[in-house]
Amino acid sequence: MQFETNYTVDFKNRSPLDGVDELFYKRWSPRSFKKTIIPEDILNAIFDAARWAPSCFNEQPWLIVTSSGEEDFGIFLDLLRESNQEWAQNASILGFIFARKNFSHNQSPNRYSFFDCGAAWMALTQQANMYGLYTHCMGGIMRKEVNKKLNVPEDEYEVVCGFAIGVIDTPEKLSEDLAKREMPSSRKSLIEIWKQGKLPAKE
Amino acid sequence: MQFETNYTVDFKNRSPLDGVDELFYKRWSPRSFKKTIIPEDILNAIFDAARWAPSCFNEQPWLIVTSSGEEDFGIFLDLLRESNQEWAQNASILGFIFARKNFSHNQSPNRYSFFDCGAAWMALTQQANMYGLYTHCMGGIMRKEVNKKLNVPEDEYEVVCGFAIGVIDTPEKLSEDLAKREMPSSRKSLIEIWKQGKLPAKE
Repeated sequence: MQFETNYTVDFKNRSPLDGVDELFYKRWSPRSFKKTIIPEDILNAIFDAARWAPSCFNEQPWLIVTSSGEEDFGIFLDLLRESNQEWAQNASILGFIFARKNFSHNQSPNRYSFFDCGAAWMALTQQANMYGLYTHCMGGIMRKEVNKKLNVPEDEYEVVCGFAIGVIDTPEKLSEDLAKREMPSSRKSLIEIWKQGKLPAKE
Repeated sequence: MQFETNYTVDFKNRSPLDGVDELFYKRWSPRSFKKTIIPEDILNAIFDAARWAPSCFNEQPWLIVTSSGEEDFGIFLDLLRESNQEWAQNASILGFIFARKNFSHNQSPNRYSFFDCGAAWMALTQQANMYGLYTHCMGGIMRKEVNKKLNVPEDEYEVVCGFAIGVIDTPEKLSEDLAKREMPSSRKSLIEIWKQGKLPAKE
């Protein structure tokens, strides 16, 4: 199944190297969504993709909590910062990712919990993309409120981020300010993020 | 291009839900590798895939440093814990992922740097998988030595993990102890990592 949209994203300011699959450079975090119901079996597949992401000691140190109905959606929306609420109200699903703070095998702090959550988030996003859906990750959340409102124990889990999943819509739907920024961002050049061999020694 | 191997991985103990792409559940971190040279253009594509991963404020807070030749490879190998050196010596590429500690726009700590590195690692891994290559991420590294030996400034970057990329080989090549563990691991059930709606309130 592919979700239909009346908007075609222009990726012209992204220049991947030869051989890079479009799964990577056609991933984008838009803000304009068209409220659409996502069937249960597709949601299952999206979150199941995260389950297979790698994690240190196979801990799967993530807990993903999502809106499950109309009433819940409002509770989740209220936990975002206002600037995110403006557009996220049109998403199909809102959720939060929590990182389990300690390893279950010895209760010591898990240094890799955020790293592993990032890998799981990428898998979730890509499986959503494969259905024609878009995702948007948000740092702008009411961090202190989230655990409390969703009853997620603070001593065990730290909220990492919020996120939206939905069907993309045209930029015109957004406020003027957001509409101007509604396009895929470019990137640093490869040489800035990848070095071959050790770096030159400092003088 | 697809790298050839004489070993077919058995994923029978992984049961994804319907609709999950095999890109996710056929990702695995083996230890048995067959030393093979990976052409430059393929390496470029693998690391370029990471470049397109999402990051907070589009910071791309990762620095990936990889072995670039025979002499370098030994330096990189020595920075792994001994238990990892045993098998990683047969990888094609060894590398380390570093997280930039502070945001470049205001120098405040970047809470999302590890999360963003995790997403980039996932992209890199999947692009490698698309070429028939496997990756293995390692927490077992000489953390204090890595920055020093590779001349990566400690005040700016924290090493997250080491990793290997290579062509998979048969388990028999490993020591008896490692050979026994050389199979894709299973996962928790979906209900353990994903909840719909807020959790039940504690009594």
